[in-house]
Amino acid sequence: MIYTAIMGHGTVGSGVAEILINKRKMISKQIQNDIEVKYILDLRDFNNLPYSDKFTKDFGMIINDPDISIVVEVMGGVTFAYDYVKQCLTAGKSVVTSNKELVAEKGAELIKIAKEKNVNFLFEASVGGGIPILRPLVQCLAANSINEITGILNGTTNFILNKMIVDNMDFDSALNLAKEKGFAERNPAADIEGHDACRKICILASLSFGRHVYPEQVKTEGITQVTLDDVDYADKFNCVIKLIGQAKRLKDGKITATVRPTVVSRECMLSNVDGVFNAITVNGDATGDVMFYGKGAGKMPTASAVVADVMDCAKHIDARKYLFWEDGYDGYVTDNTEDDIKLYVYAKSNDFDALINSFNSIFGADTVNIKNSYNNELVFITGFGKENDLINKINSLNADEVKIMHTLF
Amino acid sequence: MIYTAIMGHGTVGSGVAEILINKRKMISKQIQNDIEVKYILDLRDFNNLPYSDKFTKDFGMIINDPDISIVVEVMGGVTFAYDYVKQCLTAGKSVVTSNKELVAEKGAELIKIAKEKNVNFLFEASVGGGIPILRPLVQCLAANSINEITGILNGTTNFILNKMIVDNMDFDSALNLAKEKGFAERNPAADIEGHDACRKICILASLSFGRHVYPEQVKTEGITQVTLDDVDYADKFNCVIKLIGQAKRLKDGKITATVRPTVVSRECMLSNVDGVFNAITVNGDATGDVMFYGKGAGKMPTASAVVADVMDCAKHIDARKYLFWEDGYDGYVTDNTEDDIKLYVYAKSNDFDALINSFNSIFGADTVNIKNSYNNELVFITGFGKENDLINKINSLNADEVKIMHTLF
Repeated sequence: MIYTAIMGHGTVGSGVAEILINKRKMISKQIQNDIEVKYILDLRDFNNLPYSDKFTKDFGMIINDPDISIVVEVMGGVTFAYDYVKQCLTAGKSVVTSNKELVAEKGAELIKIAKEKNVNFLFEASVGGGIPILRPLVQCLAANSINEITGILNGTTNFILNKMIVDNMDFDSALNLAKEKGFAERNPAADIEGHDACRKICILASLSFGRHVYPEQVKTEGITQVTLDDVDYADKFNCVIKLIGQAKRLKDGKITATVRPTVVSRECMLSNVDGVFNAITVNGDATGDVMFYGKGAGKMPTASAVVADVMDCAKHIDARKYLFWEDGYDGYVTDNTEDDIKLYVYAKSNDFDALINSFNSIFGADTVNIKNSYNNELVFITGFGKENDLINKINSLNADEVKIMHTLF
Repeated sequence: MIYTAIMGHGTVGSGVAEILINKRKMISKQIQNDIEVKYILDLRDFNNLPYSDKFTKDFGMIINDPDISIVVEVMGGVTFAYDYVKQCLTAGKSVVTSNKELVAEKGAELIKIAKEKNVNFLFEASVGGGIPILRPLVQCLAANSINEITGILNGTTNFILNKMIVDNMDFDSALNLAKEKGFAERNPAADIEGHDACRKICILASLSFGRHVYPEQVKTEGITQVTLDDVDYADKFNCVIKLIGQAKRLKDGKITATVRPTVVSRECMLSNVDGVFNAITVNGDATGDVMFYGKGAGKMPTASAVVADVMDCAKHIDARKYLFWEDGYDGYVTDNTEDDIKLYVYAKSNDFDALINSFNSIFGADTVNIKNSYNNELVFITGFGKENDLINKINSLNADEVKIMHTLF
């Protein structure tokens, strides 16, 4: 018999409890061992559930019960989650979590403790909700060197951008609709400022490249500055604007990691990812591009990923899984000066002729562009070049206002 | 030290040899054990390779060498592969294969032997080449009940259809181009007749639903009958024609399994899968739709999937992986009479008025349709209905010629 405890009974936690309790028979058969939820930790009262007897407000019950070998952490946040998870691992209990903030900020340390104690620390649900991504990354791509990860990692922002693109809704209206539909929190900052996507790219980059990437090392820009005009202009270049998280291995062993609104060609698979869906493209040296796609959030998708990890723990109760990365260091995440890229540029000037003249002389009149003389706007996509060179050129334009976005072609 | 043997040194086999030999250091570090290729079995001579000393023409060397714990089968075909693999498993050696024909025809039997002998029989590379699909199916979706699998499972036919759609190339020209580019074999029957996709849907369905599905149980139709006219008409309904493999769990515990050209709405993610790419959508009760996408064939993608399986075997040399299904039975695969579907219908009649009149009275004049009175052609997409009812209605049309395709909306 394997006993588990669930810490947190919010959206995901209740889903985990329901699956583990309602599908106990199927799960026990698959793991060839009986599994029981012994405690559910939550400060609130849940008196009318079929499993109300399992609730406790005392973490001590869990940490001090030697029967408990697997603990599920689905409380969210870092403060308590970090303390409790650390205690559990130190006490020799395996931990499964869906908490991306915790893994992005404390992953390296917690993995190290898990390794020392020969227990598992698994977190498939922390990226992409129910989309299997971390395990395929580690296992199926084991024979690959991973070059690059690019993804739409946040469903809320993708929903908002999609509404702007398809229904010509402005940002605020789209955000309100997302709130109404339950896709955005009342305080949507973590989503629209890009922090959620940032945490996920940290986890993906850490796992793919072997060293911890901390959220503050990632250049992160949200979608609050994206306007309907941007969306319309991008459309004229047969592109859509998506919030893209990207991490890439550089030749010197360092990496880049960014989250930013990106002008994505409709030729790219990622441009077709609509609504609250997520998609993650992994480029390996042997496989080329492989993409994983699905709903990146939601109670049951996320809970099912947590339960799959619990089952994996249960099957390998005496054998640690190979999920590991080293700690990071200052300067490990750096700027990309290697690649030839294209930038999307929006420029505006009261002296429109001067803007056009400078554009013609710096970039060449035949660079793909849209001139809107009514609004004094010039929008173009540069040819390929190094980022620094392109930025220098753009800064030399005779413009009063300039907005730059990266592109994916 | 772990010793392996590779049976077959064709496209995939040479890729496996190269990865295992050139990346030995990285692989050994990851599996925490040294791994060496001891034999490569092939009837041909390879004298100028850095590893020419490993070749043998004698299977006896492999089967009788107790050092060999993992055997890679990448010969293809069933006759010899089946005999050798069976001998290896019976002798207590784990086997990794990319041979979809072998798994689709003999999977249940070979898995059973592997289970009895407590060794592994892994075949990730048999479906989707380098796309991780079988392992995520088993592991990450462990907490899901899988309802349905739908996929573009053959890159060659997808390339041909894509050329017909995008470049208006006719079938024969597109097939010739595929041959030139090395995407199609000189004898392309297995691809264009749908057999390759059929084998893959057999493996996916067997794994997802727990019982072996044999190729002869799958209604299989290739793409040789798809014309440029079909492609053009589909386009007018905002659809594309794709060769779709599909398997679905029915309420009575039986399943459906089909491979056929299908009219796919451009709203479906699968409609965006172009060129030689594959994509597989898995619908689970908790996760909803999850899609896996990538190059479904090719030397290095497939070889990397084989090597990942070898590494998994090496890490679990004493612990069998959970990859299992029961044998199938006659009547397990059946027709789908449960679902409401839409059919795409092409009808032609010398008496065009009679055709139109019968259409108006049977399906209703407001059913989405295209009338081409110059060619006496009527093309339409039915409303939702049970397949049998729809077919009966279609058979009642006053038509000289009728062509029906299933749809995905």
